[in-house]
Amino acid sequence: MAVGLHPPGRLLPVGGVRLSAAAAGIRYEDRDDLVLMALEPDTQAAAVFTRNRFRAAPVTVAAEHLSRAAPRGLLINAGNANAGTGLAGLEACRRTCELAAQRLGCAPYEVLPFSTGVIGEPLPVAPFEAAMDRLAAGLEAEGWARAARAIMTTDTTPKAASCRIETADGGVTLTGMAKGAGMIRPDMATMLAFLATDAAVPAGELQSLLGEAVGESFNAITVDGDTSTNDACVLLATGAAGVTITPRTSHWRAFRRELGRLMQWLAQAIVRDAEGATKFVTVRVEGAVDPAQARTVAYTVAHSPLVKTAFYASDPNWGRILAAVGRAPVEDLDVARVALWLEAGRERVRVVRDGALDPDYHEAAGAAVMARPEFTVRIVLGRGAASATVWTSDLSHEYVRINAEYRT
Amino acid sequence: MAVGLHPPGRLLPVGGVRLSAAAAGIRYEDRDDLVLMALEPDTQAAAVFTRNRFRAAPVTVAAEHLSRAAPRGLLINAGNANAGTGLAGLEACRRTCELAAQRLGCAPYEVLPFSTGVIGEPLPVAPFEAAMDRLAAGLEAEGWARAARAIMTTDTTPKAASCRIETADGGVTLTGMAKGAGMIRPDMATMLAFLATDAAVPAGELQSLLGEAVGESFNAITVDGDTSTNDACVLLATGAAGVTITPRTSHWRAFRRELGRLMQWLAQAIVRDAEGATKFVTVRVEGAVDPAQARTVAYTVAHSPLVKTAFYASDPNWGRILAAVGRAPVEDLDVARVALWLEAGRERVRVVRDGALDPDYHEAAGAAVMARPEFTVRIVLGRGAASATVWTSDLSHEYVRINAEYRT
Repeated sequence: MAVGLHPPGRLLPVGGVRLSAAAAGIRYEDRDDLVLMALEPDTQAAAVFTRNRFRAAPVTVAAEHLSRAAPRGLLINAGNANAGTGLAGLEACRRTCELAAQRLGCAPYEVLPFSTGVIGEPLPVAPFEAAMDRLAAGLEAEGWARAARAIMTTDTTPKAASCRIETADGGVTLTGMAKGAGMIRPDMATMLAFLATDAAVPAGELQSLLGEAVGESFNAITVDGDTSTNDACVLLATGAAGVTITPRTSHWRAFRRELGRLMQWLAQAIVRDAEGATKFVTVRVEGAVDPAQARTVAYTVAHSPLVKTAFYASDPNWGRILAAVGRAPVEDLDVARVALWLEAGRERVRVVRDGALDPDYHEAAGAAVMARPEFTVRIVLGRGAASATVWTSDLSHEYVRINAEYRT
Repeated sequence: MAVGLHPPGRLLPVGGVRLSAAAAGIRYEDRDDLVLMALEPDTQAAAVFTRNRFRAAPVTVAAEHLSRAAPRGLLINAGNANAGTGLAGLEACRRTCELAAQRLGCAPYEVLPFSTGVIGEPLPVAPFEAAMDRLAAGLEAEGWARAARAIMTTDTTPKAASCRIETADGGVTLTGMAKGAGMIRPDMATMLAFLATDAAVPAGELQSLLGEAVGESFNAITVDGDTSTNDACVLLATGAAGVTITPRTSHWRAFRRELGRLMQWLAQAIVRDAEGATKFVTVRVEGAVDPAQARTVAYTVAHSPLVKTAFYASDPNWGRILAAVGRAPVEDLDVARVALWLEAGRERVRVVRDGALDPDYHEAAGAAVMARPEFTVRIVLGRGAASATVWTSDLSHEYVRINAEYRT
C-alpha cells in the first residue's frame, strides 16, 4: 500500500515515441510483462546504469548498444532480471534484441534491452518470440500507461507522470515512468526509469542533464540499501516537437527544472511504493563540511534497521537516530554541536540541541510528527554549510513478509 | 528464542572477584537490573570502548577513570543506557560511582560504570542509592550467574562461560559474561562484555591480549549494523592465583588461545540470541587481496536486508548474495572469478562458479543447507589469499516486532 501515491492521471504522448505491452508469460500469468518502445530515427538517448559489479546481462548489452548507435527501440521485461546468468544470459538478451529489431526494421544494436525481476533464473526466449508480433502490431503513442503497469514487479502502483514546457519556439512534452520497490539504493540510477521528450537535445547536453538530475532524484533514495544489478535510467529526446534545447537557448533552465522535478517525483514515487512502506520519510542533513559528508550521514540514518523500525512504530526514538549519526564514517564529528528536528508541515519540533535532549522537548510533540505518514528528520551537524536530502521508507512486518516470500 | 544457545552451566569463580546483583527498579520491575563487581587491590584492567561518536556518559567516565587508576569495582546497570543525556547524564553517572566507592572503600575514580538499555532517558540516581547497601552486602565469588542474568535487556538467555588453563606454575581460571541482542555491530567491542582471570597479567600485555581477541570475536559479529553508543569490553586480571602470564612465560600461548576461544564463544552467543534470530549464519569471504577487503565484503552481505530475509525464509536466493557482493565498495572486482558455497556440517554445495550459476547446482541441495538453523555462506573472490569471517543472524518478523515495540 503506497504512501501518498495514486495511479497516474493521463500521460501525455511524446511525438516520435510509440509503446505497446503484452502478456508474454515470462514469469507472471494473466498480466502484461513485456514492453516494446519504438523510436523515430535520430532520437538522442542518454542513460546511466548500475555500478553494482554484478551487472545484469541487459545492462551490459544496453551500454554496449548505446555506445554504437542511437536507439530505435527499447525492449523491457518484468519477472526475470537476467542477472547472474553468465554467457547464456548475454546470448538470450542479444537474441531478444534481434527479435525486436526484425519487427522495427533496424539493426539489433539499435535495440536497448532492460530486465527486472528474479535474479539468477535463465531468461527464456520463447515468450519473447511468441509475443513479438503482437507487440509490434500494438505500438501506439498512447501506450505509456499500459507500459508503466507492465514493468512492475513488487510495485503496487504504476509510477508515471507528464509535463508540458512552453518555450518561445513552441511547447515540448516530457513523459516518464519508473518501477522499483525493493533492492533500491540506486548508485547511478534506479531500476528502471524511462523518460522521453519531443524536444531536440544534443547527445552531450542530454547526458549532462540526466546525470545532474539523477543526483537529486534516483541517487537520493533508498529502501533497503541494496543496489540492484539492473538499475538503469534512460532519457530520450526525439526532436518531434521541432524545438531545440541547449544551454544557449532561453528555455534551457525551464526544461532542466521540469526534468529535475519529474525525475524527483518518479524517484519519490518508488519510495512511496517501497516494499511494505507505511511511511515516507525525508532525511535532511545540514551543516556538513561538504555534500558527500551530508549524504554519508543521511544514508547511515536512512539505512539503520533500528531507525526504520522506529519509523514504523511512529516512535520518536531519537536515541537510535543519534546513534546512527554517531557511527557514520565522519572524522572528528563534534557531537556537542548536533541538533535534531522532527518536522511535518508546519510542525517543527527540536528534539536534540547541542548533542543532548532539548530541555523544552516534549515526547508528545515528537510522537505527533512521527505519527504522520510523511515527515522529515532534519539533522544539523554544525560543521559547515553543505547539505543533502535522502528519501526513504520504514521497515515493517510487510517488508519482511514480502522478501521472505518472494521467489518461494 | 536463541539459536543453539543454552543457559550457562556452572561458572567458575575467579579469585579476587566478588559480584552481586539486585532489583533496583531502574526500569524493569521484579528482576535484577544492577550489578556490583568488587575487585581486590592491584587488579589489572584492560578495556575497549565503542567508536560511536555519541559515546554514552558511562563510556566517557569509565575511560577517564581507567586512565587514572586500576579499578576496585565495576557498577553495571540494565534498562537505561545513560546515552544522549548530556551533562546531567555525566553527573548522574559520577554520582553512582561515588555511591559504589563509599561501600567499597575506594575512590570514586576507582569505580568503572557501565549502562545498557534505552537511549536518551535521564538516569535516575535514587534506585542506585536504595540498592547499594544490599549490593555491598551480597558480594560473593559465586555471583557470576546472577550477574550475567541481571545485565540482560532484550536478551533471552544469559551469556557466560568459564575455563581453566593449567600451567607449569599452577592452574588459572578465566570467566566471562556478555550481553547484547540488538544495536549490535561492535566497533571496538560489544555492549557489554566482562572477563576476569585470577592470573597476573601486566597492564600492557593485558590490553594487547584484549585488542587482539576482540578483532576475532566481538568485532566480527553483526546483528543489524547499528554500532551501539555503549559498547564496552573489559578484561580483568586479579593475580589471585599466583600465576604470572607474559609473552616470556611458557603458558602465554595457551592463555591467549583460551581467551580468544572464550571471547569468540561470547560474541557468537550474542548473535545466537540476536533479536528475532532464527538462524546463526557464518559469512566467510576468502580469496581477497587483504583482510580489510574480505571484511568489507562479508559485512556488506551480512547487513543486506534482502539477504537476511532470505536467510529467514530458508531461501537459497544466491542472486541477492551476489548483488550484495557486487555493491560492496571493492575496486575492480572481477565478478567472473567469484564463487559461492553454501555449507553446513559435511554438506558443501557450490552454487556459483566463475560468477554465474554452477551448472551442477540443484536448488534442492542449496535449500537443504539453508533450512538448517546454522550454516555458512562462503564467498571466494579469486583475487588473493586473505580471508575474514563474520557471524550474523537473520531478519525476521520477530526482529521488526521487538524493535517496533521496544520503548513503547
